[in-house]
Amino acid sequence: MQILNGQKLSQKILETLKTSIKKKQANIKLDIILVGSDPASQKYIEMKQKKAKKVGIKTQVHDLPDNTTTQTILRLVNNLNQDPSTTAIMVQLPLPKHLNKLEILNSINPDKDADGLTATNLGLLFQQNSTAIIPATALGIIKLLKSYKIPLSGKNAVIIGRSLEVGLPLLALLNAKNCTCTLCHSYTKNLVDICQKADILISAVGKPNFITANHIKNDAVVIDIGINKDTETSKLIGDVDFKSVSDKCSFITPVPGGVGPMTIAMLLSNVFKIWQKSNLSSRGTK
Amino acid sequence: MQILNGQKLSQKILETLKTSIKKKQANIKLDIILVGSDPASQKYIEMKQKKAKKVGIKTQVHDLPDNTTTQTILRLVNNLNQDPSTTAIMVQLPLPKHLNKLEILNSINPDKDADGLTATNLGLLFQQNSTAIIPATALGIIKLLKSYKIPLSGKNAVIIGRSLEVGLPLLALLNAKNCTCTLCHSYTKNLVDICQKADILISAVGKPNFITANHIKNDAVVIDIGINKDTETSKLIGDVDFKSVSDKCSFITPVPGGVGPMTIAMLLSNVFKIWQKSNLSSRGTK
Repeated sequence: MQILNGQKLSQKILETLKTSIKKKQANIKLDIILVGSDPASQKYIEMKQKKAKKVGIKTQVHDLPDNTTTQTILRLVNNLNQDPSTTAIMVQLPLPKHLNKLEILNSINPDKDADGLTATNLGLLFQQNSTAIIPATALGIIKLLKSYKIPLSGKNAVIIGRSLEVGLPLLALLNAKNCTCTLCHSYTKNLVDICQKADILISAVGKPNFITANHIKNDAVVIDIGINKDTETSKLIGDVDFKSVSDKCSFITPVPGGVGPMTIAMLLSNVFKIWQKSNLSSRGTK
Repeated sequence: MQILNGQKLSQKILETLKTSIKKKQANIKLDIILVGSDPASQKYIEMKQKKAKKVGIKTQVHDLPDNTTTQTILRLVNNLNQDPSTTAIMVQLPLPKHLNKLEILNSINPDKDADGLTATNLGLLFQQNSTAIIPATALGIIKLLKSYKIPLSGKNAVIIGRSLEVGLPLLALLNAKNCTCTLCHSYTKNLVDICQKADILISAVGKPNFITANHIKNDAVVIDIGINKDTETSKLIGDVDFKSVSDKCSFITPVPGGVGPMTIAMLLSNVFKIWQKSNLSSRGTK
């Protein structure tokens, strides 16, 4: 069994990014919209800001109270869409439940959509259009698989979890790599049987130790997207029972140090991609 | 075994549509762009025009020579996007190979996109957004399943074929109905095994008699999207070996008379939906 070391790969990606940004003397700013006071969201944003600063991307957090209306956020997004000093925009999820999440996400100009969650970018991704901005977690997983030269074409990939942020974009990407993809969710009836057929098993469920050795085909590749808190130790743990599964699989992502750091690296890569694109097109019109 | 009679259901839908259009005194025009002289495309367009006329939708075919450039088509689409007399636009596929299909499709204003093939409408569909215009074949299949009260939630659906026009939107729709979906294609290695697990099997391959009784689980629901010409008789036949499969399955679509007529009915329903939406929003701004 080999560990898919997202920590190490993400550092390499961030270093390359830093060099590119310095070389181009790029003036890049990511605007982050945070609504409410979810401590996990605040922690994620701190991590994003810290790594952004390291690579030379400025960040501005728009910290809005819990009772902010959809209309107020739409106005803010509209201002940022038009503000030339804003390179890219992201809305920290989850949003408080009273807000219209899709309306807010879709109001972002697709050309400034750092998380790639607008309908247009999602559609471009399913069209296999190279201009698509791809959601960071899904993109990070593909980069990780690629860096370990794991073959994808013709493999059976099982994705558990069908979120807009992770499951659906992963499906689009793995399908584009010629995997045969099965998309599972809470209504799936024969999950263990399906998982046992997976050459590549990806879990984004959010339940500790949900995936056990029983789910795993020998030598499968196991990707753990779960971020859960161990109730006893308060440590971060994934969806996968690492101890039993790691004996049976060929590759596995640890939690922490697997998918998580890749997500931030790909978010910042997206922001740079957006800057490059806007820079090219503004040069093109001069 | 019961036949899923798309001919009958489509007639019912078209009659309802006719009544609605008459009642609203709706002035609706569908612009169809045809490039080249593919006889099958010309036949499909004739059928669309005939049924459109019956329900009270005007059509205008823009018949362009085989050597038309992408730029010329983009200009035409741009004109139609801005022309208030054009309710909806569709590009007859397949396009000649020298043309940039995605660029042409994505140039259509998503609010006039009769086939729902723009990136924005595809993304809205995957977001389960009710404003999405849904590709007609996929939508027709869901309506057909619904009209026969076939349960979908928790069922294993296997889709063979991952086209932008059929496979991908079907995946989005069946996933939204809580099916567990597997998307197969030419790189899929164990297709027979996968098909044998399908409660609902959908074939969009384009090979006569590709699906045999051996692929079928007892009492499966079989949807045949193939439109192939029998080399001996020149008759239309599907992907499914109807004779052997129909003994084993619970429901099956015939070819012709299954999915085909549903596609035209749903295309015209889409055009009416677009008219309703534009009519509502133009009233809203008065």
